[in-house]
Amino acid sequence: MELTAELLHITAGGRRIAILSEETASQLGVHSSDRIRITHNKHEAIAIANLAVHFPKNRVGLYEEIAEILTVKEDEKIDVQLAQLPESLSHVRAKVRGERLRETDIHKIVKDVVERHLSEVEIAAFLTALNIHGLSMSENEAMSRAMVETGKTIDFGKTPILDKHSVGGIPGDKTSILVVPIVAAAGFTIPKTSSRAITSPAGTADRMETLCPVNLTIKEIRETVNKTNGCLVWGGSLELAPADDLFIKVEYPLGIDPLLLPSIMSKKKAIGATHVVIDIPTGSGAKIKTRTEAYLLASDFVDLGKRLGMTIQCALTFGEQPLGCAIGPALEAREALETLLGNGPPDLVDKATTLAGMLFEMVGAKGGKRKAEGILESGKADRKLREIIQTQGGNPKVKPNEIRVGDEIAEVKAQQAGRVLWISTEDIVQIAREAGAPREKGAGVVLKAKLGDAVRKGSVLFQIHAERAGKLESAFQLAERLQPFVLSRKAEERMLLDQVPAKVTREKPFMLER
Amino acid sequence: MELTAELLHITAGGRRIAILSEETASQLGVHSSDRIRITHNKHEAIAIANLAVHFPKNRVGLYEEIAEILTVKEDEKIDVQLAQLPESLSHVRAKVRGERLRETDIHKIVKDVVERHLSEVEIAAFLTALNIHGLSMSENEAMSRAMVETGKTIDFGKTPILDKHSVGGIPGDKTSILVVPIVAAAGFTIPKTSSRAITSPAGTADRMETLCPVNLTIKEIRETVNKTNGCLVWGGSLELAPADDLFIKVEYPLGIDPLLLPSIMSKKKAIGATHVVIDIPTGSGAKIKTRTEAYLLASDFVDLGKRLGMTIQCALTFGEQPLGCAIGPALEAREALETLLGNGPPDLVDKATTLAGMLFEMVGAKGGKRKAEGILESGKADRKLREIIQTQGGNPKVKPNEIRVGDEIAEVKAQQAGRVLWISTEDIVQIAREAGAPREKGAGVVLKAKLGDAVRKGSVLFQIHAERAGKLESAFQLAERLQPFVLSRKAEERMLLDQVPAKVTREKPFMLER
Repeated sequence: MELTAELLHITAGGRRIAILSEETASQLGVHSSDRIRITHNKHEAIAIANLAVHFPKNRVGLYEEIAEILTVKEDEKIDVQLAQLPESLSHVRAKVRGERLRETDIHKIVKDVVERHLSEVEIAAFLTALNIHGLSMSENEAMSRAMVETGKTIDFGKTPILDKHSVGGIPGDKTSILVVPIVAAAGFTIPKTSSRAITSPAGTADRMETLCPVNLTIKEIRETVNKTNGCLVWGGSLELAPADDLFIKVEYPLGIDPLLLPSIMSKKKAIGATHVVIDIPTGSGAKIKTRTEAYLLASDFVDLGKRLGMTIQCALTFGEQPLGCAIGPALEAREALETLLGNGPPDLVDKATTLAGMLFEMVGAKGGKRKAEGILESGKADRKLREIIQTQGGNPKVKPNEIRVGDEIAEVKAQQAGRVLWISTEDIVQIAREAGAPREKGAGVVLKAKLGDAVRKGSVLFQIHAERAGKLESAFQLAERLQPFVLSRKAEERMLLDQVPAKVTREKPFMLER
Repeated sequence: MELTAELLHITAGGRRIAILSEETASQLGVHSSDRIRITHNKHEAIAIANLAVHFPKNRVGLYEEIAEILTVKEDEKIDVQLAQLPESLSHVRAKVRGERLRETDIHKIVKDVVERHLSEVEIAAFLTALNIHGLSMSENEAMSRAMVETGKTIDFGKTPILDKHSVGGIPGDKTSILVVPIVAAAGFTIPKTSSRAITSPAGTADRMETLCPVNLTIKEIRETVNKTNGCLVWGGSLELAPADDLFIKVEYPLGIDPLLLPSIMSKKKAIGATHVVIDIPTGSGAKIKTRTEAYLLASDFVDLGKRLGMTIQCALTFGEQPLGCAIGPALEAREALETLLGNGPPDLVDKATTLAGMLFEMVGAKGGKRKAEGILESGKADRKLREIIQTQGGNPKVKPNEIRVGDEIAEVKAQQAGRVLWISTEDIVQIAREAGAPREKGAGVVLKAKLGDAVRKGSVLFQIHAERAGKLESAFQLAERLQPFVLSRKAEERMLLDQVPAKVTREKPFMLER
């Protein structure tokens, strides 16, 4: 059917959508969400039809994504036909029914996600079904491979390629900024890509960005790694496993994370990693709550690694409180630099050298942790990080106290004396975000007491940093309300954990970072 | 944050969406799918944020739905803030996790669906989770009530109000056009709303529309029912349980139908029905495949009816072949009129008088079926339908052969002699739709042989009617390829039903009509 093109002159956020009036759609036999095939001269595009009541009839409204493919001008005539549903949609429906999918089925789904032939409604159904039914290990493998194959890959032309990843879930985790230079200083290749914060106060990319640019091209990454053995860059614009970003867009509002395994493993595979240590912080306020859960996840990582040709070791780490003392991009970068200079908090030093040590032992070294400690203590790791900072375009001479942090500061004090029995990591996350993190890079929280510490009445439990007074005020009010520290001389006497049905609806915190 | 309004001058199909550049969104702390609160003078709207890379910064793009609420003009300044996620979303997430929902949770979800505060991605996750986990009877009840309460209702001010509904699934089912006048002629009130075809060749509204207007207002329905005791109208624009239409929009691409029970029951409740007979066609090509499944569904209907204060009886009916001989809007209307004149096919007559008879017995009559047969045979039902046609604005004197049917006709003939062992209702549906039904009202199929009939080689199995030669040709080719009739003198010898994994992906047919 010949229709007149109406250019809408706006993008649909990458979606391939066209608009029809209900009347015109009915003449074409098209229902909302059906596909239409639009042809103009020799160009063809498949779009998902959105119906609008008041849209003029015999016209088709084209968002820029479609208009570009067709190279069509306003008011030109174009041919529009009902198109078949994509084959991948029948695999999505099979997964909703609970069927196991074959590798080829999954590949078709992922390809159609990347090429925008599946709508977000269909992706939502797929992810919800995966979340409920779970993925078999074969499905995880197929998903990982499909995510790698539909994106770019980097081949550094050598082996081994080491890597480190945390499944996320506790604030203040700046371990990567230490592990990368320790490993690189030992002569191993460790090209680390990382993410920005979505639901947390800081991602490694946010932290590093206070030290140097992190938005490198693949060519620049290659140069940095060739020169320094390592890098610490943002992975978001590299198109390594780009399906993941499209899945995350849908997972985020739904608060689900069914693709944790393939999401992480596809990124590692795409960058050519051969040996990966995966950190699983485990604690009641972390993403992974119990050891049982952590062991299950760890064995899945190891198994999936084997299937994909990677050696994986998982570290279950203590996740009952924030790591180190600083939370927030700039505050954490400052703490990482201090640690490289020998002034770090003991938990951060222990975790970083443990993970680096595991990587050393995975490639054949003995006494890996002592080797990592040696590199840290010798100042070699500090020099290596500064070399990486310089190569990525930052100032290699930066001192910790030159990193700008928010100078609006409030102190939250103990209302009684006692020992710190409990710190709510979730509350600390909320307070740091209320103060402006991660967007305002100087904002965050600095802990002045940690689990087990004895505090006096009126002594400072933590400081809040903000860049603006208004933000500081609202973060401070939130802190007063949440009271993230529990102080006591004896164990708690309140036995009730929660009530069902709940009296007020409280959203369970959701951590999408991975 | 103050932004400049940019009016997009297009509707978003009812969705409440606003567009931000990624940069502006980041400054607001807004991720894709987050909610934003937009205020302008004293008007306020909550919109779901869509992010676009190339959208100009410090501007917010407003679709007409939002622009109207705000009464804002191009380039005016408006205030935009990150808004909280709706509480209903946490109930959606709870359902995805497999929790049972409370009545108040479900009410909040349905209300937010109707008020467009939940996105289609979130509705898709909700429906997928319902489809996988199923609904408890309490959830079905809560869903039905919420769907009634968020829409309009009609009170005819009398009792009983009778009604009839089919869960759908076999082509040619024009029973309602007979049941309504039989019941109304007996002096009972039966205000029948019905739907148009989505995946079938004809809905009752499509059939009736070849006889008279079906797009009546609530006031006109009331007048028609007061005058004639019955009506046969399209329910789609009456806003009875409007949530259903929004759910269907998302269910359609996903091929799922988790809300069959509350969808039907809410429409019945909204129109004030007190006694309802529900037809469940049961057969391997129908929506409900087995008797076991049909009994389960039937007992759910009865139970749900009790909870909602309605008396329900279900009829499990033979669903192994199309009902009567005609398939397609006009062909079926013609067959219904013929049946009222005493010339109907025996299966249609039996089914219509059985269902009408069940309704009579539900309100106290004895020998319901004989009573229904008497009304049909006496010509009273014919006169009553013509009275309804006239009151709805059609021609009461129309003769069956005056109804325009497609005059492009092809005949499909038996390639061997034998008995009709099997008719694929799914193939017949496809052929009728390929011929143009339901959009081209004269298109469809007329069966010349039914199950058990003996046919000679070369005798006509069925005719295809179309309004256009091109459509006839492609429907005929499809018929030749599908061969919907199986003829044999002995039982089939091919034991293999299907192969898994499948050699070619074939979409399982999906019937959304209900």
